[in-house]
Amino acid sequence: MDATSSRKVRVGLIGAGRIGSVHAEHLAYRIEGVELAAICDIHLPSAEKCARKLDIPICSDTPEEILENKSIDAVVISSSTDTHATLIQAAAYSGKDIFCEKPIDHDLSGIDAALEAVRKAGVRLQIGFNRRFDPSFRHLREKVRSGRVGTPHFVRITSRDPAPPPIEYIKVSGGLFLDMSIHDFDMARYLIDSEVYSVFALGGVRIDPAIGDAGDIDTALISLQFENGVLASIDNSRQAVYGYDQRIEVFGSEGVILAENVPPHRTFCSDRNGVHGPLPLHFFMDRYIDSYIEEMRSFIESVRAGTEPSVSGSDGKAPVVIGLAAQKSMIEKRPVLISEIQQGVNQS
Amino acid sequence: MDATSSRKVRVGLIGAGRIGSVHAEHLAYRIEGVELAAICDIHLPSAEKCARKLDIPICSDTPEEILENKSIDAVVISSSTDTHATLIQAAAYSGKDIFCEKPIDHDLSGIDAALEAVRKAGVRLQIGFNRRFDPSFRHLREKVRSGRVGTPHFVRITSRDPAPPPIEYIKVSGGLFLDMSIHDFDMARYLIDSEVYSVFALGGVRIDPAIGDAGDIDTALISLQFENGVLASIDNSRQAVYGYDQRIEVFGSEGVILAENVPPHRTFCSDRNGVHGPLPLHFFMDRYIDSYIEEMRSFIESVRAGTEPSVSGSDGKAPVVIGLAAQKSMIEKRPVLISEIQQGVNQS
Amino acid sequence: MDATSSRKVRVGLIGAGRIGSVHAEHLAYRIEGVELAAICDIHLPSAEKCARKLDIPICSDTPEEILENKSIDAVVISSSTDTHATLIQAAAYSGKDIFCEKPIDHDLSGIDAALEAVRKAGVRLQIGFNRRFDPSFRHLREKVRSGRVGTPHFVRITSRDPAPPPIEYIKVSGGLFLDMSIHDFDMARYLIDSEVYSVFALGGVRIDPAIGDAGDIDTALISLQFENGVLASIDNSRQAVYGYDQRIEVFGSEGVILAENVPPHRTFCSDRNGVHGPLPLHFFMDRYIDSYIEEMRSFIESVRAGTEPSVSGSDGKAPVVIGLAAQKSMIEKRPVLISEIQQGVNQS
Amino acid sequence: MDATSSRKVRVGLIGAGRIGSVHAEHLAYRIEGVELAAICDIHLPSAEKCARKLDIPICSDTPEEILENKSIDAVVISSSTDTHATLIQAAAYSGKDIFCEKPIDHDLSGIDAALEAVRKAGVRLQIGFNRRFDPSFRHLREKVRSGRVGTPHFVRITSRDPAPPPIEYIKVSGGLFLDMSIHDFDMARYLIDSEVYSVFALGGVRIDPAIGDAGDIDTALISLQFENGVLASIDNSRQAVYGYDQRIEVFGSEGVILAENVPPHRTFCSDRNGVHGPLPLHFFMDRYIDSYIEEMRSFIESVRAGTEPSVSGSDGKAPVVIGLAAQKSMIEKRPVLISEIQQGVNQS
Repeated sequence: MDATSSRKVRVGLIGAGRIGSVHAEHLAYRIEGVELAAICDIHLPSAEKCARKLDIPICSDTPEEILENKSIDAVVISSSTDTHATLIQAAAYSGKDIFCEKPIDHDLSGIDAALEAVRKAGVRLQIGFNRRFDPSFRHLREKVRSGRVGTPHFVRITSRDPAPPPIEYIKVSGGLFLDMSIHDFDMARYLIDSEVYSVFALGGVRIDPAIGDAGDIDTALISLQFENGVLASIDNSRQAVYGYDQRIEVFGSEGVILAENVPPHRTFCSDRNGVHGPLPLHFFMDRYIDSYIEEMRSFIESVRAGTEPSVSGSDGKAPVVIGLAAQKSMIEKRPVLISEIQQGVNQS
Repeated sequence: MDATSSRKVRVGLIGAGRIGSVHAEHLAYRIEGVELAAICDIHLPSAEKCARKLDIPICSDTPEEILENKSIDAVVISSSTDTHATLIQAAAYSGKDIFCEKPIDHDLSGIDAALEAVRKAGVRLQIGFNRRFDPSFRHLREKVRSGRVGTPHFVRITSRDPAPPPIEYIKVSGGLFLDMSIHDFDMARYLIDSEVYSVFALGGVRIDPAIGDAGDIDTALISLQFENGVLASIDNSRQAVYGYDQRIEVFGSEGVILAENVPPHRTFCSDRNGVHGPLPLHFFMDRYIDSYIEEMRSFIESVRAGTEPSVSGSDGKAPVVIGLAAQKSMIEKRPVLISEIQQGVNQS
Repeated sequence: MDATSSRKVRVGLIGAGRIGSVHAEHLAYRIEGVELAAICDIHLPSAEKCARKLDIPICSDTPEEILENKSIDAVVISSSTDTHATLIQAAAYSGKDIFCEKPIDHDLSGIDAALEAVRKAGVRLQIGFNRRFDPSFRHLREKVRSGRVGTPHFVRITSRDPAPPPIEYIKVSGGLFLDMSIHDFDMARYLIDSEVYSVFALGGVRIDPAIGDAGDIDTALISLQFENGVLASIDNSRQAVYGYDQRIEVFGSEGVILAENVPPHRTFCSDRNGVHGPLPLHFFMDRYIDSYIEEMRSFIESVRAGTEPSVSGSDGKAPVVIGLAAQKSMIEKRPVLISEIQQGVNQS
Repeated sequence: MDATSSRKVRVGLIGAGRIGSVHAEHLAYRIEGVELAAICDIHLPSAEKCARKLDIPICSDTPEEILENKSIDAVVISSSTDTHATLIQAAAYSGKDIFCEKPIDHDLSGIDAALEAVRKAGVRLQIGFNRRFDPSFRHLREKVRSGRVGTPHFVRITSRDPAPPPIEYIKVSGGLFLDMSIHDFDMARYLIDSEVYSVFALGGVRIDPAIGDAGDIDTALISLQFENGVLASIDNSRQAVYGYDQRIEVFGSEGVILAENVPPHRTFCSDRNGVHGPLPLHFFMDRYIDSYIEEMRSFIESVRAGTEPSVSGSDGKAPVVIGLAAQKSMIEKRPVLISEIQQGVNQS
């Protein structure tokens, strides 16, 4: 899109499932300078329901109508993960700017092919690591970058889901490291200006044996060493019964900064047994709703202003590499260097 | 509106100023089952700007077009306070359900005339005491009503604005008790199932002598005694430099429940000097944005369902009576009974 | 005692009851530069038990042995309230420095006689308003005095006991205002560099009708106006089932400072129902133990250094005057000026 | 000592340095049922100073007088680490019950010899892992043991000193894992009813190059896997400029329990820049003073009651083994099994 244009960005949305319909609503109602011009979903009724509710003129069950429509400037890809890499390539070929949900692919060659297509086409690509746009985490990062805690020494990320997804989902999720921890790997990179050097991962099945039967783990502890010497610890669980536990601490030479959980209200009751406060927001759509709006706003702004998106294609690749290293570490019971994973793979 | 109808409520909005344009956006984008059909403002460009942005078909500089339009079911009155009572009467005469910003009037006879018109017309009237719909306060009230703290003994409301309004506004505001404390009087009534019996108010000018010159105070401490014996304390300030301080505690025979301030994020930094956390949300539109959406949703739902609005006309009158008692108490340096104010006034 | 002396202060303790035996232990073990030389109690076994445990050489059932002993420099009076004024006079006559528990007397003429005796004898007198030495409240006051919150506008003191005392005690306590609120009146004066100008008090029986039958109230809300214009609100209850609720806030032109409750540990548990934390310390001897040590250390230091005690005789009188004004206010249902109480009474 | 005896335990204290003089004061003043009968220190003036202040009758510069004194029931060993194992053996040979500061020795054979001597003599031995007696951690453990968080899955221990010790101390400290982390290894074992199976440690010099020059690290991240499957993460730093950071979380199937830092007071100030609260207690003697009293009280009680001490000799050995595994892991850059360290060593 022409950087000097002041007209609205015309967006086509591919995939009207849970996260897709959230993006659709934000594009329709919550973000300025954008027009949601088209929507598609392989399950046509989902697309139609969205189109009707939000007055979207074009609606289909395949992405072709969007990709071939010259008046559409950008696409938002929120279809299933296995379609991401192919759709990125097709959209890049059509010259459209691209927002794509994470992960790009579970396979590094798929990612590399997608990033290469984007590079050749010269279009913009933003990956949906929404947590970077969470008000608390964003504030935390700004403080770290501004030197508020001095030189960072150590990062701790607690990331625990309120409840496991269905077993059917777990089977195709790529495993806990690529499905859940991937957000935390991205967050660690986002907070520390350096790349991960080595990964050591411990994992187990503590919540539900069915998760183990599906070939996955539900509990993990990951130690990262960054190239600049910073250490990081990530702990994950598929089930924190007390809510969605999403906390980060960055320790540095001049202090520590902590992002605490976010509760739905701020009401505390004291009785004979104690002081009782609210649990963290339970559902990711509640906890991270602002971050979804902000990431999309940021994408639309970068398209309008002709600037680089704030979460790049290589930001989309790096956490997958870390996730693959974590898998290897857990299996081989040893720390794994990032360079071991990237050997023989095209660099983005 | 026919209670059995499933079609959308058609709303006309009167007054497209600061709060009016917020209501407009909520009606257009955030609330289901409603169509914002018309808007008017004596300052036509304000109405036009809103109409353009939100695709509102009818736009004018007087309310007549809305009031005479048979296809419009309900009006939202967010024009200046001095127009409220008259507009309520006109809308009631036109048979429209009414949402009106607080206060109905600074004068009890004006309030009574408006409420009488509503009663005769048999339309619905909801008053804009939005704080009743704040998630924290609503949770607090539900807990109090459910007996969570036993029999209430004492309520404390801290209500401090981040900065004083312009002196020009203060001159027409009706004074701190009718402008600021009125929300707290409503909140006290909302939390305690009883009417206020007596009021004792202390006040002074501590922030800005210009406020005193304008005939108002900027700092107040009000003691309420309810008919059921509950005591309440309200402290107000026109300027809390640390942010918008909005806290409530209800003490009872079985415990205490506290609604704390709401910060914009949940990030805490520790350095050599202390642990530093975020201030409360500073701007009332940030702090109470959810409550504005929820009060309007509640109004639309009551219109659609044919039920009583959740904040009635007499709920709109009572806090004004308490405010007048507070004024009298401060001037006469003695506790004033509510019955002293209501004598000789038509009861609603 | 000679200000230049470096020898230990020799103290005689009068009254070995609950608070007396606490003072005894602190004097014996926790404070340097003092020797607990003698103890007496009208109930001799209480004195003997203390003497045995702490190796106190002199033990008796009357204060004469202490008062007549020339080698004793100072007395600590922790006998029952009705003996305070007389013992202060006797100790002053004997030339001993005096620490006396609050209140000096329920009667202003008794207080004035005691203070006059102290003045004539030129001895030191410190009154046991221990809360001034609480680490949180002391920190709060230092911050207020240093201008941390700018010019103070408003003080709020929440002071709620975990459980009512026995009815027999209530009958002789002087009533809630002189027994409980007196600490809060002192605290308000301590925090604000000004004297109280007027008092308005509301009170009731909400906890236990037996308290009402004994002629007292169990719940109170008191509004104070200081001579310098600061407003203060004190809320009291004889029974906060959730623990000993002792909080203070000072609001000023540049901010607010809050002293929160003190819990016994800092452990928080989150489960499916919420986040659960510890109640405040329940027993005043736990909550204020440090303050008891510090007030006694301060007294001993002032005796050794020949300096003025940090809580003077007139600091002991003023809260009683405020308490009497509160009683009058509640009965006469009107604000009462401090000057109404002090008229016709000898000023200290 | 005869379990049925009701007379006081007579204790001899060996080592009147920093921690020794604290134990001395507690034994003299804060604990019932004990008499501090003797004290020795190779630096005689230190012993004499203590003896004078606390009225200890026997004072010497060697432990012989204590060990040979038949009237002394128990010894408290708080001399330098290199003397612990030898003194334990000598005291055991003399038939005295023993409290010994941690660690018993940096060398496993020294530990085993000491424990063997204790076993043969049938005396009691308690090791000074004082943090087990901290009110917050003790509460946390009781809750974990009672099933409050269900089956534990993961433990996190944050343990960061406010400032590094002198380089001279670091050189003889045994290194961060044996000097600092040892407390955390003990705490992890205390909280989880299981032994550590494997250790993975990352470490670096981030605070002060002089620490590296002295052969030590100042920053560490340690992952533990317990035999029962629980994972644990420990992060250590020699310098947390914001105070003594001592926090623990235990996550389980039914919730999480957290022990927060302990501040010196509970005062919070809000100004234009934020809400500012107190740092954690800075000095270990402030933070853990209660735990030092309680561990000694527990020892004296076990001697009087003839029961097993609450921290056994093998509790003293296990953390040293874990520390040696951590050192090996860091050097060899791989997870190390506890069994690798214990092979060829006599089991206690």
